[in-house]
Amino acid sequence: MSEQAVTAQSEDFSRWYNEIVYRADLAAPSPVRGCVIIKPYGYEIWEGIKAGLDRRFKATGHQNAYFPLFIPESYIKREAQHVEGFSPELAVVTHAGGKELEEPLVVRPTSETVIGEAFSDWIQSYRDLPLLINQWANVVRWELRTRPFLRTAEFLWQEGHTAHATHDEAEAETLQMLDIYAEFAIDDAAIPVIKGEKSRLERFAGALRTYTIEAMMRDKRALQSGTSHNLGQNFAKAFDIRYLTESNLQEYCWTTSWGLSTRMVGAVVMTHGDDKGLRLPPKLAPHQVVIVPITRRDDQLTAVMDTVERLDRELQAAGIRVHVDRREGQSPGFKFNDWEMRGVPVRMEIGPKDVENNNAVLARRDLPGRQGKQFVPQAGIVDVVTALLDEIQANLLDDAREFRDRNIHDVANYDELKQVVAEGAWARAWWGGSDEDELTVKDETGATIRCFPFDQPDQSGKCVLTEKAAERIALFAKAY
Amino acid sequence: MSEQAVTAQSEDFSRWYNEIVYRADLAAPSPVRGCVIIKPYGYEIWEGIKAGLDRRFKATGHQNAYFPLFIPESYIKREAQHVEGFSPELAVVTHAGGKELEEPLVVRPTSETVIGEAFSDWIQSYRDLPLLINQWANVVRWELRTRPFLRTAEFLWQEGHTAHATHDEAEAETLQMLDIYAEFAIDDAAIPVIKGEKSRLERFAGALRTYTIEAMMRDKRALQSGTSHNLGQNFAKAFDIRYLTESNLQEYCWTTSWGLSTRMVGAVVMTHGDDKGLRLPPKLAPHQVVIVPITRRDDQLTAVMDTVERLDRELQAAGIRVHVDRREGQSPGFKFNDWEMRGVPVRMEIGPKDVENNNAVLARRDLPGRQGKQFVPQAGIVDVVTALLDEIQANLLDDAREFRDRNIHDVANYDELKQVVAEGAWARAWWGGSDEDELTVKDETGATIRCFPFDQPDQSGKCVLTEKAAERIALFAKAY
Repeated sequence: MSEQAVTAQSEDFSRWYNEIVYRADLAAPSPVRGCVIIKPYGYEIWEGIKAGLDRRFKATGHQNAYFPLFIPESYIKREAQHVEGFSPELAVVTHAGGKELEEPLVVRPTSETVIGEAFSDWIQSYRDLPLLINQWANVVRWELRTRPFLRTAEFLWQEGHTAHATHDEAEAETLQMLDIYAEFAIDDAAIPVIKGEKSRLERFAGALRTYTIEAMMRDKRALQSGTSHNLGQNFAKAFDIRYLTESNLQEYCWTTSWGLSTRMVGAVVMTHGDDKGLRLPPKLAPHQVVIVPITRRDDQLTAVMDTVERLDRELQAAGIRVHVDRREGQSPGFKFNDWEMRGVPVRMEIGPKDVENNNAVLARRDLPGRQGKQFVPQAGIVDVVTALLDEIQANLLDDAREFRDRNIHDVANYDELKQVVAEGAWARAWWGGSDEDELTVKDETGATIRCFPFDQPDQSGKCVLTEKAAERIALFAKAY
Repeated sequence: MSEQAVTAQSEDFSRWYNEIVYRADLAAPSPVRGCVIIKPYGYEIWEGIKAGLDRRFKATGHQNAYFPLFIPESYIKREAQHVEGFSPELAVVTHAGGKELEEPLVVRPTSETVIGEAFSDWIQSYRDLPLLINQWANVVRWELRTRPFLRTAEFLWQEGHTAHATHDEAEAETLQMLDIYAEFAIDDAAIPVIKGEKSRLERFAGALRTYTIEAMMRDKRALQSGTSHNLGQNFAKAFDIRYLTESNLQEYCWTTSWGLSTRMVGAVVMTHGDDKGLRLPPKLAPHQVVIVPITRRDDQLTAVMDTVERLDRELQAAGIRVHVDRREGQSPGFKFNDWEMRGVPVRMEIGPKDVENNNAVLARRDLPGRQGKQFVPQAGIVDVVTALLDEIQANLLDDAREFRDRNIHDVANYDELKQVVAEGAWARAWWGGSDEDELTVKDETGATIRCFPFDQPDQSGKCVLTEKAAERIALFAKAY
């Protein structure tokens, strides 16, 4: 709420991010190492994300449930790769109710294990399949370097867990949920994510295949924004999730899991934000429209406020999220800057002249200055604002897509890859290397394979590092 | 889903409760001591509770936020009564990320402390007041004896936390939130709760005053179903929550907190359930209507299912939550019992005769057998079902209120109190005793003061125990 300008993105993107997150009141520092407080303005964005996803999950037959926060330590150890992946990050409860526990309890870093154990109880026969469960929950991963929303010791997320009779059904579910994530990201968050498969190195601990949606932030770094895992029969075998087939045979189930977290709030900030602050996509903005009443003399107040209240009511009645800035003792200029910083898509100004002429001034956050400003008649304001919000939503997506495409470069050899990555952009290259080769690229360039995008060329090519024959194109980038 | 009958309430209420909770798929046992898994059918009831409350919180200006799960151990100790109240129940994280922590972290049993610390940062001047925050979260209290929903080591709840400039504003907020709880309980959950104030002994650890809504279960035990606390300046002083007044003075804030938990699911079960199982109030029922198709021969299937699908669509379109029971290989009789056990308010039966005559059979869960059954024309089904759901909602409330009032007895002396309590009912009596006197009653009868109801007689009276002058009537009962 200070009038001091925000650090420019070009000057120090990381500092810009932290300033925006705190100054726009998305989050506040907390006394607990690596944790932040999600403040109302940030939490409302998360509520929008939740609503957008939950609706899609339910429409595809998933049901919400809730599993315990604590997991017996022995459970985590049952799936070999899983324990290796998560052990270093666990928070452990050793004492409770004034006593030392016989078996320490792990604070869930993810719930495959405890849900796997439950599924083995719940599933008896093919009639119980598919089992389609989702959980909205907090999880804890003790990370060393944390940043608000992007990586915190505790975060909020949803984790879907499903069990199926066959590999193909599990694979279809895994891909369906990735599609839902992508649809949500593109349609609601205006983030043009790229769908693809993770390399073996970047796979979820214990998965057969991991799919991902990858987004490009405004500093051109990649942000993994949601993942969907085909767990094969690994967890079914570790937790004895079996079913009786129609022909009376015992078979192991095929399971999936998929998650998207409060990290998405960070993705919204870093995809759309500019030097003035946030730019929120209308579908997720807590306030879609802010009305700033403008009066220079006290005798103008009643007339202006009458009009403001009436327009407020009209817009609200149409389901538009409106906020009237009634703060006293702050100049209109201060308020304009403040709401610009907070990324409200549309600002409406109402002054005495506007009351007189039955006009309103609308200013778009996505277009700067004069260009984004228009005078409109108050009559029919709902239609005008609705259309404007749609236009802003579409424009933010176009803008992000244009930025993304401008910063992905096809590279023909390793030198080009190094150069593109050194310039901060993404490199698209044929890849046929081993895990070790992938680590070499990471060590030498700082870039990882973000994914093998689903959108692949028809032919095959030559691996950018080993020059051996390669079947797939990969996207390389530095990532959060 | 077994066809075996449920234990009768009169036989063993506690066993009845556990059977219903598990057999109706509200919850499942978990491998973690004192924790249950909330299954989809139970979680959907909780989602209904959340929606009903969240809407009311937002309509009264509250905003959601999220604070860390972990609280530094030293925080808990800052408010003297608070630490005394919660210490025995804490779960403590001592290790994280492979190392022993310098300061152990407590898993939140409630968040007054960490939120108090945040409020002291966020609040500077009177302009920042009132600050009206709510959090939906999981909390952990390591209880010895646990029961699904009623008392579990981990549970889900909302906790409201607000800060105000004056005592009176804090008191008004505390009472407003109690009113919201009562309105929700009565209107949505059909539970005729009694609003009142807690005695000093039953107050929240660190509060000036605690208000409660108390409900009578079908075994006549009391269930505290939501509490609202005026915390005075206790937490403000412990966490230095101060504000600058308009005349530039530093003053401590007055804070409140209020919470309602998944315990409410248990309240719904135990207020309305009968020997056949659950009876869910329509406003919270995951399925308001279940349609059971009835066919005796395969050639009837298409015609019946066409009608079923059409009625399903019509009811859905009207916003009614309908479920079609498509299970194969189960008899209609099995399905009727199953949905009765699960408490679905309205069962619709569609058979070949109904298709022919354009009729439907509706059976109410709240009225037994023939009495609750009616034939209605398919035309206009939406209006009929809507009216029926309203009637059932009202009937469940009336039924519970009648049961409650029948089991609260005015008592004139201590012998009568003992007798009423021994019979399992509630005693209403004048009370002017001390904390020790209250403990005497508890030791000798097992009953506690549930509350001093807001609804008080005009005159004063004589304390039921000490026979000294008494200003207030209290409700005594055994409680969960």
